[in-house]
Amino acid sequence: MGAKRPLHTSPKSLEEEGQKSFRGQLYESTARRIQRQREAEARFASMTPPSAFARNAAFTFSIVFSCGLAYWFGSMRPAEVSSLSTAPLDSLDPKGPRHNTAPKSLEACWTDMVSIVGKEHVSTEEGDRQYHSGSEWSSYTTKDSERPFMVVFPSTTEEVSKIMKVCHTRKIPVTAYSGGTSLEGHFSATRGGICVDFARMDKILKLHKDDLDVIVQPAVGWELLNEELGKEELFFPPDPGPGAMIGGMVGTGCSGTNAYRYGTMREWVLSLTVVLADGTVIKTRQRPRKSSAGYDLTRMFIGSEGTLGLVTEATLKVTVKPKSESVAVTGFGTIREAAECVSRVVGEGVPIAAVEILDDVQMRCINESGSTSREWKEVPTLFFKFSGTPSAVKEQVGIVQKIAKGKGSKSFDFAKNQDEAAELWSARKEALWSVMAKRRDEGDHVWTTDVAVPISRLPDIIEETKEDMASSGLLAAMVGHVGDGNFHAIILFNDQERHTAEEVVHRMVKRAVEMEGTVTGEHGVGLIKRDYLAHEMGETAVDAMRKMKQAFDPLCILNCDKVVRAQKPKPGEVQPW
Amino acid sequence: MGAKRPLHTSPKSLEEEGQKSFRGQLYESTARRIQRQREAEARFASMTPPSAFARNAAFTFSIVFSCGLAYWFGSMRPAEVSSLSTAPLDSLDPKGPRHNTAPKSLEACWTDMVSIVGKEHVSTEEGDRQYHSGSEWSSYTTKDSERPFMVVFPSTTEEVSKIMKVCHTRKIPVTAYSGGTSLEGHFSATRGGICVDFARMDKILKLHKDDLDVIVQPAVGWELLNEELGKEELFFPPDPGPGAMIGGMVGTGCSGTNAYRYGTMREWVLSLTVVLADGTVIKTRQRPRKSSAGYDLTRMFIGSEGTLGLVTEATLKVTVKPKSESVAVTGFGTIREAAECVSRVVGEGVPIAAVEILDDVQMRCINESGSTSREWKEVPTLFFKFSGTPSAVKEQVGIVQKIAKGKGSKSFDFAKNQDEAAELWSARKEALWSVMAKRRDEGDHVWTTDVAVPISRLPDIIEETKEDMASSGLLAAMVGHVGDGNFHAIILFNDQERHTAEEVVHRMVKRAVEMEGTVTGEHGVGLIKRDYLAHEMGETAVDAMRKMKQAFDPLCILNCDKVVRAQKPKPGEVQPW
Repeated sequence: MGAKRPLHTSPKSLEEEGQKSFRGQLYESTARRIQRQREAEARFASMTPPSAFARNAAFTFSIVFSCGLAYWFGSMRPAEVSSLSTAPLDSLDPKGPRHNTAPKSLEACWTDMVSIVGKEHVSTEEGDRQYHSGSEWSSYTTKDSERPFMVVFPSTTEEVSKIMKVCHTRKIPVTAYSGGTSLEGHFSATRGGICVDFARMDKILKLHKDDLDVIVQPAVGWELLNEELGKEELFFPPDPGPGAMIGGMVGTGCSGTNAYRYGTMREWVLSLTVVLADGTVIKTRQRPRKSSAGYDLTRMFIGSEGTLGLVTEATLKVTVKPKSESVAVTGFGTIREAAECVSRVVGEGVPIAAVEILDDVQMRCINESGSTSREWKEVPTLFFKFSGTPSAVKEQVGIVQKIAKGKGSKSFDFAKNQDEAAELWSARKEALWSVMAKRRDEGDHVWTTDVAVPISRLPDIIEETKEDMASSGLLAAMVGHVGDGNFHAIILFNDQERHTAEEVVHRMVKRAVEMEGTVTGEHGVGLIKRDYLAHEMGETAVDAMRKMKQAFDPLCILNCDKVVRAQKPKPGEVQPW
Repeated sequence: MGAKRPLHTSPKSLEEEGQKSFRGQLYESTARRIQRQREAEARFASMTPPSAFARNAAFTFSIVFSCGLAYWFGSMRPAEVSSLSTAPLDSLDPKGPRHNTAPKSLEACWTDMVSIVGKEHVSTEEGDRQYHSGSEWSSYTTKDSERPFMVVFPSTTEEVSKIMKVCHTRKIPVTAYSGGTSLEGHFSATRGGICVDFARMDKILKLHKDDLDVIVQPAVGWELLNEELGKEELFFPPDPGPGAMIGGMVGTGCSGTNAYRYGTMREWVLSLTVVLADGTVIKTRQRPRKSSAGYDLTRMFIGSEGTLGLVTEATLKVTVKPKSESVAVTGFGTIREAAECVSRVVGEGVPIAAVEILDDVQMRCINESGSTSREWKEVPTLFFKFSGTPSAVKEQVGIVQKIAKGKGSKSFDFAKNQDEAAELWSARKEALWSVMAKRRDEGDHVWTTDVAVPISRLPDIIEETKEDMASSGLLAAMVGHVGDGNFHAIILFNDQERHTAEEVVHRMVKRAVEMEGTVTGEHGVGLIKRDYLAHEMGETAVDAMRKMKQAFDPLCILNCDKVVRAQKPKPGEVQPW
């Protein structure tokens, strides 16, 4: 009886015995219990989750994964771009544009530049970097810490496009350079990066004589251009300072003595090829003399000071050289009398080619420099230029002489031939140099700055500014494009007088704005004059300009900080008005 | 023995019996099994998760909640605005701009408009809505379903600003209307919305005679302006079609016969007051004659066809009326001879005030209309205008006569006094009307369209277009501003000939582009010519324009669909080039 009774023995045999013995009953319930237990164990075994750790890990993983996916989808939702039409200072990232001018980034950029233009056309020389950071003439020079890392010299539009693509990808700032004669810190970098110098793109590509247009590259100088055009009896009227080149002339929307008759750069550019901040190349027009097709992109880039795109080609209008020219010079007792003479001349419809006013200080400087062949009366003096047929010129000179006399002119000299005309006009040409010749020593600087006002206010602003200059003890000569209401102050100062000079210029600019004028007639805004814009045109207009800047250069890599601020100024950074 | 043995009986008693009976052994293992089973059941009970449903629900909820939170965080990530400099078609929302022109929205807008300008200055009249949807002259008229819901008549800049604020908030499109004389569907709405009619802003606000500028509102007509200016011996040179108003003239950057000597609208606007798409008011400049201060916003709005802002005030340059004028009319055997005459006149530096060419078809129309007092030779004819001093004019007429003769002119009539000058010029003035007078019946339409090419190509394009017109069986007269390379085709057609006319114009535009010209010299692009822009200047330039549009009008509510497309075209929507 020690042996276990095999469980599989059918209980029937017990029943067959007709008797449920205890043992039989025990066998039966035991068997069932064991079966239930086995089944329970089996279920239990199948139900037991993996270990707590494994379970938690799986749960965590699926939550994290799903959340990650959801976050990613959320960030994919289309960016809600601003629906506003302007970009106020407050809307800017307070940290400013995000550039990458870390050494590694710049060195990698150097490698890219070398592969684009060749090693011999990339310079990291200290001298080059300094040269491209400012000039004696410019009101702003880059601080050493913000100098461009290198200067790159491209030769084609395609190379410029590749350069911009690299800088766009790497978020490296770019400043452009052609003649280097600009006056308001235009080519001076503010945030390092690279400088693109167009020196190798200095060709006159094609003259279409019958269409009166010429295609040039940005490093063509206007004087050289006119030498070439002169061979075909043609000329290009905008005449800014000596040494200026087309790239910078487009950038500043410049003009000169010919503006009264011919207008500014805006009137003399048919089309531009421009490389945008992301490397895209656009051409703003073909060669029609006029067009109303779409937005005037050409005019948008003219005067944009290298902040919206880099000009790699320009199709310029040219015109026929006048058959005959003459010059008349006439002195007055006061600036006001001189200006009234001009008003009368204009009112008579005399088609003068140019009219300039030089004040008594300027005339004295010219005399003292001895740079012309005659001695001039040191009084407010008008310089007229006439052009047309010989008889038309003669007639115009006669009318002007009569008017000048009626307005109290003290003298009237007019040229009877080309040589005399050149001699008379030489005083006007020597204006700037003659002031420079007054430098007392190496420490003296010359600051030439300009504003423009409605024509009738020019005598006021010249006289008030002269007074201000005189009482500040500074030597300053006034030269005015009197037919346009635009004048330049040429100021001599040394470092001790710098602050005084800045204050005097500030008051001159403020005066111009208060007379419904503008903070600059020709020189452009650059860095130094940008904070004046809001006073001249209101914050909203400047915010509209900033919106345009953001549209074309979202990363602010093109001549960043020029024309409009890219970052809110710190307290005390802006000069009080 | 039927009773179950209590389980709690300690087996010890069995052991104490010193004998492990089967029953004892059975008891022992059973008890243990039962205990293990109970324990297993207990563990099992504690381990069973809640019901599958509850468990799933909790799990799902936590996943969904976490994902929702993650999605929200993801979408909070600062919007990555595009760093590109252009906006290609592919970057646009394929569904187009999101406007809200549901009836409820427009009715609410109506209430807003009424509170801004007063009920009497808001019209939902069918007649007004139709009138502001197109004209007999325009190449595009709004479909009935897209008509503006109402026309609003503001009277001040402030009202226009409030109107735009409402429309910006409500995302309601706006079209602007002044003279209604534009030709390329400029004021025709494409997506409903409202029309702002400047009719009440029709004043000349201030003339500054000594500064040669005048401040006007947008609904001042140029002819009325010149009547007023004439009293002061002044005038405003841009001379587009009759009835044009300053608002639209700024919008299209128009010009006319005076462009050769004086330029286009671009040269004659000093400053604009503009209301932007979000209601911001900006003033682009004060009143200096020239400026280099900041971006040239003035030029940006000129020619922008109401898509970048609404002009509510303009400061225009004016100039002195010439002391003396004359007209000369000279006929040639061919257009080419006439054009060569003009080239020679320009080459000689003769400062002609205007020069127009009318072809033989045009001269015949003038004769047949009987609208002038004389009979004209039906040949290609040049109309010269001269201005200056009487002796200068006399000299110029003499030079031109000599040149014309040398170029084979068949006749040369010049005016000896003001009346004769008016009589001679009348043919030029009657050009358009004389073609209209050729209408065969009510079903005839007149289409005037224009292109411009480099000056030397004008004879080619006129001759080729004439040939094309003739072989298409259409009556078309050619009128050219031959000093600018710009000409107009005035085409007569009925509905059966519409398709033919469209094809001929298409070929003319294509021809102009292939000659390095432009798709429109004066009329503007509007809706009909916008797809030509990419052919003229390349896709990238058009994409740059679109970027500018997006910057100033992100919601595309200002004259949407004009100048640049706001939505990718459907397949087959763009006419093949």
